Amino acid sequence: MPTIDAARLLKDLRDLARIGAYKTGVHRPTYSADDMTARHWFATRLTEAGLQPEIDGIGNVIGRSATPGPKLLLGSHLETQPHAGWLDGALGVIYGLEVARALGPAFGQAIEVGAWADEEGHFGNFLGSRSFVRGIDEVEIARTVSRHDGTRLADALAHAGLAGRPRAWLDPARYRGYLEAHIEQGDELDTAGLRLGVVTSIVGIWQYMIRFEGVQNHAGTTRMAIRKDAGVALVRLTAAIEANFPQVAGPRSVWTTGRILLEPGAPSIVPGGAEMLFQFRDASPARLVAMERALEALVANANAGPCSVTLTNVSRSTPMLMDAGFQDALERAAERNAPGMHIRMPSGAGHDAQVFAERLPAAMLFVPSIGGISHHHAEDTRDKDLVLGCQVLADAAAEILGG
Amino acid sequence: MPTIDAARLLKDLRDLARIGAYKTGVHRPTYSADDMTARHWFATRLTEAGLQPEIDGIGNVIGRSATPGPKLLLGSHLETQPHAGWLDGALGVIYGLEVARALGPAFGQAIEVGAWADEEGHFGNFLGSRSFVRGIDEVEIARTVSRHDGTRLADALAHAGLAGRPRAWLDPARYRGYLEAHIEQGDELDTAGLRLGVVTSIVGIWQYMIRFEGVQNHAGTTRMAIRKDAGVALVRLTAAIEANFPQVAGPRSVWTTGRILLEPGAPSIVPGGAEMLFQFRDASPARLVAMERALEALVANANAGPCSVTLTNVSRSTPMLMDAGFQDALERAAERNAPGMHIRMPSGAGHDAQVFAERLPAAMLFVPSIGGISHHHAEDTRDKDLVLGCQVLADAAAEILGG
Repeated sequence: MPTIDAARLLKDLRDLARIGAYKTGVHRPTYSADDMTARHWFATRLTEAGLQPEIDGIGNVIGRSATPGPKLLLGSHLETQPHAGWLDGALGVIYGLEVARALGPAFGQAIEVGAWADEEGHFGNFLGSRSFVRGIDEVEIARTVSRHDGTRLADALAHAGLAGRPRAWLDPARYRGYLEAHIEQGDELDTAGLRLGVVTSIVGIWQYMIRFEGVQNHAGTTRMAIRKDAGVALVRLTAAIEANFPQVAGPRSVWTTGRILLEPGAPSIVPGGAEMLFQFRDASPARLVAMERALEALVANANAGPCSVTLTNVSRSTPMLMDAGFQDALERAAERNAPGMHIRMPSGAGHDAQVFAERLPAAMLFVPSIGGISHHHAEDTRDKDLVLGCQVLADAAAEILGG
Repeated sequence: MPTIDAARLLKDLRDLARIGAYKTGVHRPTYSADDMTARHWFATRLTEAGLQPEIDGIGNVIGRSATPGPKLLLGSHLETQPHAGWLDGALGVIYGLEVARALGPAFGQAIEVGAWADEEGHFGNFLGSRSFVRGIDEVEIARTVSRHDGTRLADALAHAGLAGRPRAWLDPARYRGYLEAHIEQGDELDTAGLRLGVVTSIVGIWQYMIRFEGVQNHAGTTRMAIRKDAGVALVRLTAAIEANFPQVAGPRSVWTTGRILLEPGAPSIVPGGAEMLFQFRDASPARLVAMERALEALVANANAGPCSVTLTNVSRSTPMLMDAGFQDALERAAERNAPGMHIRMPSGAGHDAQVFAERLPAAMLFVPSIGGISHHHAEDTRDKDLVLGCQVLADAAAEILGG
């Protein structure tokens, strides 16, 4: 079994966190100057590890081996959410680098590493990994703009020095599969005092826009009896969802109303229109369908009074099962390094691994997030857990390659 | 008794509606070019009516009589809400003009007329009438900005050609009182098939900001059991208000949640903060207090779960009783001109008359709004009701001056 270098791992993580440092965290949006500095820094580390780095036309940084033989692909992402934490995707990228170094020539330089661009969705959904698996075309790239300020993706790529570079493609025959490590982002491991999570699946996310149409009117002269208040209709449905969803939900289902808008949103005007963004997540396709049926029934029976209500699905992602054999390998490695301190669990957040899972056997390993904090500069994981996670990933990679 | 000139009245209303015409309504924000054109147009009409017009330093247009003797002040406002109706305040201003013409020298030119600036609150609350009753000072004017675009009031006044003009002051001893006509803005008269409303009081408006503090978190990785979702807490309180307020409210009470904001308002983030603007209105001070007590109890017992909730009063306006003798005079005139087709009713909206009621006997007359539509270009009143209302106002004015 390989042995990782704990000091080298922690130094690299901390060096990387200095690029775009913000308070105790990092601010490194996709294609920003700091993000590009991080990509070039990482390419240099790949070279030092004996890999051949490429930064492709979408910003993916890929370290390839010149040695023949079966390979295993490891990776995650380098950019961060705005003013977010120092680990998140950086953890999985540096783990990949360290595993490549730890296995090295002894394992035929069989680990390749990727940092996939824009997993955090500043411009798109899993832009880099989708590009790598040929899931995005030039038409989509041409029409993609920044979700923050509307900057065209093409302009951002040019500004980042990536204009004209070819995009790299995945050759599925090259790899045994894909492994990704990440912080849990929730509090389940930390609360239970556990140190490792073997991911069973990545949940499906189903998103909806629910819109209410009433009649805008004067909040002083319009009697309660004749109002068609779209805001009141929205509140009634939202309250009904909160009251009813626990009955239809599974033990790990989550549902969220993330945005509510009343129109025109003035203190003395009865809202004539209202809308809300609602989503739920579960790893079970059947559970997702049941939750959608429940939502449809609540909307159909909504006590919307004199208002009309329209339910529109915005997106439905498919839950992605992680490879069973890889899960077993990760679990064996976890048990060897930290007996009894690991569980299997679904991922409630999306990850590049769900994109790779459509092309390759893929699996994920979680390390604990202290207090479950994520996407915040206070995000952290204990050093001993950072080291343990990387060793477990290295052991599992060695087993997969040796098998 | 005086007789108004129906054709002259309707022509003036329609001529005025062409200034800033928008679809079937009018767009004439305070101090806009169209608004100032309307003020100068009105000043010319005052001159033709034998009155001496003044446009003062806040934009009030006041037509004064040079004839000695007791006077009655009539008026309302010329500016409109954005893209609003053709009558609203313009009705009361042109009614005042027509009553001044109808009573004329025969009544000692005893009617004076005012168009009070910015009743609609593009910059402030009842800016013109409050200025006239010395309810606003230079410090407040200096710090007042447009609620739409932040333009300084002083700059808007200068741009409108009003810089350096003195502001006119009310001399209470000069007047028997103040009369204002307005469209009802609600549907009560129209629905009941009635033609006139004698206003008993102008409701008090009590406004609140209710803020919820939870913890912002990831909508995928944060289990339902540990969430501190400020949006869910807000929805629960709002639903409780809607369920409970009918029991504490009076028959004419109204309450409105005009704005809801979830923070950060993203589809995949559990809201960490949330706030809502809530208001209620009633003509009874005791009822207002009871509604505030009920709101405080609901907030105190709010099922806010792990979130905290803060209730902040934003404003409390005092319900203003209209003068009893003036109400009687209006009712007698209504009964004489339209027997049985009138009622007494409170005003659910604020009006300049509530500002004057602090200094002078004051009263208001409502004409029907077709379908209750207000602050919309479809706002309208039947011609026969427009004529009837003006005649009733003239009769009441004559009785008040003759008494």
